[in-house]
Amino acid sequence: MIDKLDDLRIDADRMLRSFNELAQIGATGDGGVDRPTFSGAHLSARSWFRDQIEKAGLEFHTDGAGNHSAFLACGLKDSPSLLLGSHLDSVPKGGRFDGALGVMAAFEVLRTVKDEGSRLKFNLEAIDFTDEEGTLVGLLGSGAMAGHLSRDPLQSPRGGRQALAEGLQRAGLSDESMLAARRNKGSLAGYFELHIEQGKRLERMGIDIGIVSAIVGICSYRLTFIGRADHAGTTTMEDRRDASLGASAFTLAAREMVMKEHPDCVVNVGRMEFTPGAFNIIPAGAEVWLEFRAPDEDEFTRLDSALNQCAQKEARRFGLDLKADFLGRHSPTPMSAGSQQDITEACESLKLTHTSLVSGAGHDGQSFAGICPIGMIFVPSKDGASHAPREFTKWEDCVNGTNVLLQTALRFARIEP
Amino acid sequence: MIDKLDDLRIDADRMLRSFNELAQIGATGDGGVDRPTFSGAHLSARSWFRDQIEKAGLEFHTDGAGNHSAFLACGLKDSPSLLLGSHLDSVPKGGRFDGALGVMAAFEVLRTVKDEGSRLKFNLEAIDFTDEEGTLVGLLGSGAMAGHLSRDPLQSPRGGRQALAEGLQRAGLSDESMLAARRNKGSLAGYFELHIEQGKRLERMGIDIGIVSAIVGICSYRLTFIGRADHAGTTTMEDRRDASLGASAFTLAAREMVMKEHPDCVVNVGRMEFTPGAFNIIPAGAEVWLEFRAPDEDEFTRLDSALNQCAQKEARRFGLDLKADFLGRHSPTPMSAGSQQDITEACESLKLTHTSLVSGAGHDGQSFAGICPIGMIFVPSKDGASHAPREFTKWEDCVNGTNVLLQTALRFARIEP
Repeated sequence: MIDKLDDLRIDADRMLRSFNELAQIGATGDGGVDRPTFSGAHLSARSWFRDQIEKAGLEFHTDGAGNHSAFLACGLKDSPSLLLGSHLDSVPKGGRFDGALGVMAAFEVLRTVKDEGSRLKFNLEAIDFTDEEGTLVGLLGSGAMAGHLSRDPLQSPRGGRQALAEGLQRAGLSDESMLAARRNKGSLAGYFELHIEQGKRLERMGIDIGIVSAIVGICSYRLTFIGRADHAGTTTMEDRRDASLGASAFTLAAREMVMKEHPDCVVNVGRMEFTPGAFNIIPAGAEVWLEFRAPDEDEFTRLDSALNQCAQKEARRFGLDLKADFLGRHSPTPMSAGSQQDITEACESLKLTHTSLVSGAGHDGQSFAGICPIGMIFVPSKDGASHAPREFTKWEDCVNGTNVLLQTALRFARIEP
Repeated sequence: MIDKLDDLRIDADRMLRSFNELAQIGATGDGGVDRPTFSGAHLSARSWFRDQIEKAGLEFHTDGAGNHSAFLACGLKDSPSLLLGSHLDSVPKGGRFDGALGVMAAFEVLRTVKDEGSRLKFNLEAIDFTDEEGTLVGLLGSGAMAGHLSRDPLQSPRGGRQALAEGLQRAGLSDESMLAARRNKGSLAGYFELHIEQGKRLERMGIDIGIVSAIVGICSYRLTFIGRADHAGTTTMEDRRDASLGASAFTLAAREMVMKEHPDCVVNVGRMEFTPGAFNIIPAGAEVWLEFRAPDEDEFTRLDSALNQCAQKEARRFGLDLKADFLGRHSPTPMSAGSQQDITEACESLKLTHTSLVSGAGHDGQSFAGICPIGMIFVPSKDGASHAPREFTKWEDCVNGTNVLLQTALRFARIEP
């Protein structure tokens, strides 16, 4: 039986048909998809997935957070579920692999195991988590399932309360149903996810599979440099308290500092807004949208402090005041050692090259840290592109990753003789 | 007769009453006014001015550009008008002196000359020009009167076509009436304007009156630094083409360069916009709203070229492309030598201290360069504040400036014995 499972492979053609059908839903015509959470295209993708689940003879499950899953009762009596999955929502005008590959891979693993009629320690569940990308909240479905969701992020979601309220209504959900979606810890055996790397490392090294050792911590602030609005023609350069200067100097200095002193971290200023925002008025305010990421808690804390000091220093340099609004923080999340070992063994058995790496992006798996074992499998991204229509992974790599997901799940869930 | 005119002074109390009544229209409660062109408050201020003109026994004149004026037929038969004036519109949430002082001063000069019954070479006209501040177009009424207005700025006004069309309708005007408002060159004897300095120079030097030698040239561009949108977590710092870096570095470098190499010029980045503008996406585009000013044509041209080279250099430094959209340009305008002499003599006769200075702001007078003699009189601005509710000029300075306007007009228009 063990030998037979070791030889089990997914049906790559069947999976490709499903993947391509899904990529048509919300297709933007340039290879990408536009499926923000609870948009028309996203709701269509969810209905399509439900149909596929039922056509495949799997059970369709859903919950108050709108997570959709295919369920295969292949486990021992009253056994928990091994979750495999990802998400069907995309960033606005995103790519067709991010999330979708992981859901289609999980679904294919269940179809393969069902066809084989294998019995395992655990039931299998291929899940599509709600709003991973954060159009509304971010890691919303997995957070709700793991019991991390509170009323605060529902009242002040990053996408705005109105968008969340309207989205929930379109999906037939509510704040109350979201908050009630917590799943009993004992019902979860583990979580594995296949995802594109969204970086260039695997492609550069020519390696098939990335075994994620940790998911970075992500922290965001809104910094406001505060100067004084004056006439841009009649105020001498020396007399200005120009908020644009603090914001610009911080943007450059933060990058320099991270590159020199925190080479494993990244920082981004994704947006600036000046007030009042006219050609002929010196900016009184410059709002900076800051996000930074670090692979471990210690460096995360040091970087946070260093960036805040850097902002203060640049504000002082130009005679400005500084206001720092803390917006949110996800701690760095190490992947389970046992799960990394399972993935490593799956790669070896499939004769695929592999390396350990840190995920620079957040993923639903981090919601389950401390609740069940978690593991993540990466496949190469062409040119590292992601969150854009040019996002691409060779189909051969997608198939390799899905077979690693299958073999990892079988290793994790096999009934020892 | 000459001696008697030399002794003539305005009625400061009457002018103060008018100035204070006007400052109530569109008052923001913090000392400022909010009277953007053709807003309700601006239209009210215009009606109020018309009433005041008629109550004062002066003729009310208007034209297809919506310029309103008080007319005093004190000149020789068929003589042209000596225009005195400014504007009643304000920037959004502006001050109560900018423009309003000049209109009230011109109006008071006409009332004073009327009371005296003086006969002059020219008729006098106290004018409120439409949309000096540029809520819709900028220098709109004076440009139309001077014959500079074409269809282009009416089709693509800086405030947007819809705002212009709606504003014209509210004021009972049209594109056609604006374009027909050109006044015969022979009908204009000259133009003098009293205005607040909007800078700190007079206050710092403790001088009563500024005699404007030139109005700066103003040029604006929209620069777009173009990089690549990538995932802000998974893309290494080295692999980024981050448009925010070019925009930030240009903002700092442009300021440095102007301060070191063009000390008589100013530069402002009043706004930046990043696309797509999300915390977790590296900016693919950074739009920079650039405006710069120079006192003479030669330096204006050199600064234009230096700023464009600076933008190109910073774009290259960060691997970005650059797009420069030229938005508009007003050439530097020297004031007439004779007009400056008239103002100087008026100051001397009033025993007021005076200095020559360049206006860092644009004014309606520049529309009449080459058409008739032009002159401008500045009074001190407290702390140099302008385009803000804290804009303030001591009443004594306002009265001094108005007497200089009166004496300048009398010198310009007196009938030689």
